[in-house]
Amino acid sequence: MDLSARIDAAIHAAIRQGQAAPSPGKLASALHYSVTPGGARIRPTLLLSVAKACGDENPALADAAACALELIHCASLVHDDLPCFDDADLRRGKPSVHRAFGEPLAILAGDSLIVMAFEVLARAAPHDPLRAAGLIGLLAGRTGMPNGICAGQGWESEAVVDLSAYHRAKTAALFIAATQMGALAAGQDAEPWEELGARIGEAFQVADDLRDALLDEETLGKPVGQDDLHGRPNAVSEFGIDGAIARMRDILAGAISSIPRCPGEARLAKLVTAQAEALTPLKWRADQARVPGE
Amino acid sequence: MDLSARIDAAIHAAIRQGQAAPSPGKLASALHYSVTPGGARIRPTLLLSVAKACGDENPALADAAACALELIHCASLVHDDLPCFDDADLRRGKPSVHRAFGEPLAILAGDSLIVMAFEVLARAAPHDPLRAAGLIGLLAGRTGMPNGICAGQGWESEAVVDLSAYHRAKTAALFIAATQMGALAAGQDAEPWEELGARIGEAFQVADDLRDALLDEETLGKPVGQDDLHGRPNAVSEFGIDGAIARMRDILAGAISSIPRCPGEARLAKLVTAQAEALTPLKWRADQARVPGE
Repeated sequence: MDLSARIDAAIHAAIRQGQAAPSPGKLASALHYSVTPGGARIRPTLLLSVAKACGDENPALADAAACALELIHCASLVHDDLPCFDDADLRRGKPSVHRAFGEPLAILAGDSLIVMAFEVLARAAPHDPLRAAGLIGLLAGRTGMPNGICAGQGWESEAVVDLSAYHRAKTAALFIAATQMGALAAGQDAEPWEELGARIGEAFQVADDLRDALLDEETLGKPVGQDDLHGRPNAVSEFGIDGAIARMRDILAGAISSIPRCPGEARLAKLVTAQAEALTPLKWRADQARVPGE
Repeated sequence: MDLSARIDAAIHAAIRQGQAAPSPGKLASALHYSVTPGGARIRPTLLLSVAKACGDENPALADAAACALELIHCASLVHDDLPCFDDADLRRGKPSVHRAFGEPLAILAGDSLIVMAFEVLARAAPHDPLRAAGLIGLLAGRTGMPNGICAGQGWESEAVVDLSAYHRAKTAALFIAATQMGALAAGQDAEPWEELGARIGEAFQVADDLRDALLDEETLGKPVGQDDLHGRPNAVSEFGIDGAIARMRDILAGAISSIPRCPGEARLAKLVTAQAEALTPLKWRADQARVPGE
């Protein structure tokens, strides 16, 4: 099975277990709606790619980790779209969950997906309980307070923002979870994999800022200009478009050189580059082609 | 240390770890606000009581389990109070979290407390990883979909409600988690402890219905008449006050006779009765005193 088939199989199995009868039908539907269509599944793909680069000696645990990570990501999208945060009507080209199901079910769907993420890992524990507990700890650490995406969102309520902590928690956290959980699922020490995740997260943030500045709502499948609207820091407003592109290239080079020694090191470097290219909007590619000397 | 000191120590240690710098200050404060003052801490007290009745051979794990359970309960209160659910201005005699901190921070505080619950258990895993993973699975199962408190709240969005599934998920779920996690933390099989939790949950629901019908807002520390307001099923409207009291007595007798054989069986039975009495509002006690022949 290729990576995206492994991820989808794990996610659909988890959602089906969450929908077992008797259960409230609308919330059950909202769970399925929240995780489909899948988008690029960038974080779980990165997780499984790292696991493969490290030998993937426990694929069941790696699949559970990838699934759990994506469930947390989907939960964060559902809650971030709520009226009191981004008030987004669209997500992945369809109505956001609270637009389709109402606010109560959107809050509950997010809560249920968070819980489901940890349940999936607990269910995989008999494969290797200590490693599963480690994965739960890593995921929780990059989801909650003080270092996770909840903290990242929490910074947006502060008058004075620690920008480095904000970015690390808001966007990098789940990429750090991806690289560290991938390594741990395959039996490797998680710590040396933190830098790769942090740098990919940083690159992703810059790419997102570029997309937000350059693309229209229809292409993006979600509202544009959200950062300007909410006064959030943004690489494009800070460095300009060319500056942001140059910055992204630097970050990616650093990411690739930070990959720890492992059997699949070269292949993983290629994959990180390919993922970065896939994130590149067309206009940005055209701009890039015009950079002198390239 | 007595049980309530063990619970408070574990909860405050968890909250402090969630507030470690750098972290967004308002969300950090909202976390502390959400878990204090502690209320009766009924669920974690039940959990530790069951663990003690079973020998309490791994108190660190039992403390983590009790703390995690209470964090989930506090998270559910924060989210249930939100404007799109109960729209409650008061909780435990002070402004609800969204009234004190705003809706975004209330949603994030609830999310962070859910995550923290699983993190606390993951952190206790080195004591016994397989048992910790089991505790995480039990807690997740009684929190999310289809059998947890999220499902219970989800039933309130349905036109046709499975009443038995609704009550089991809405109120009994965290009591079942309490008895099963208490047993498992002490190394016992969790399954035989489900019935005790379910019955205590049922009794608690009836007591809550009685309090909701009989007490005023000031005494209760939260808005009264919420069930009538939201058209939710209620033992008092179904059986009348005397009928509900009789029903509660039946349920408690069943609860006590369901306690599995264990070293602390007699003591646990006493504690369950005492807890039930503590839940009894004064007017109900007076009514009870007037029942002929008692």
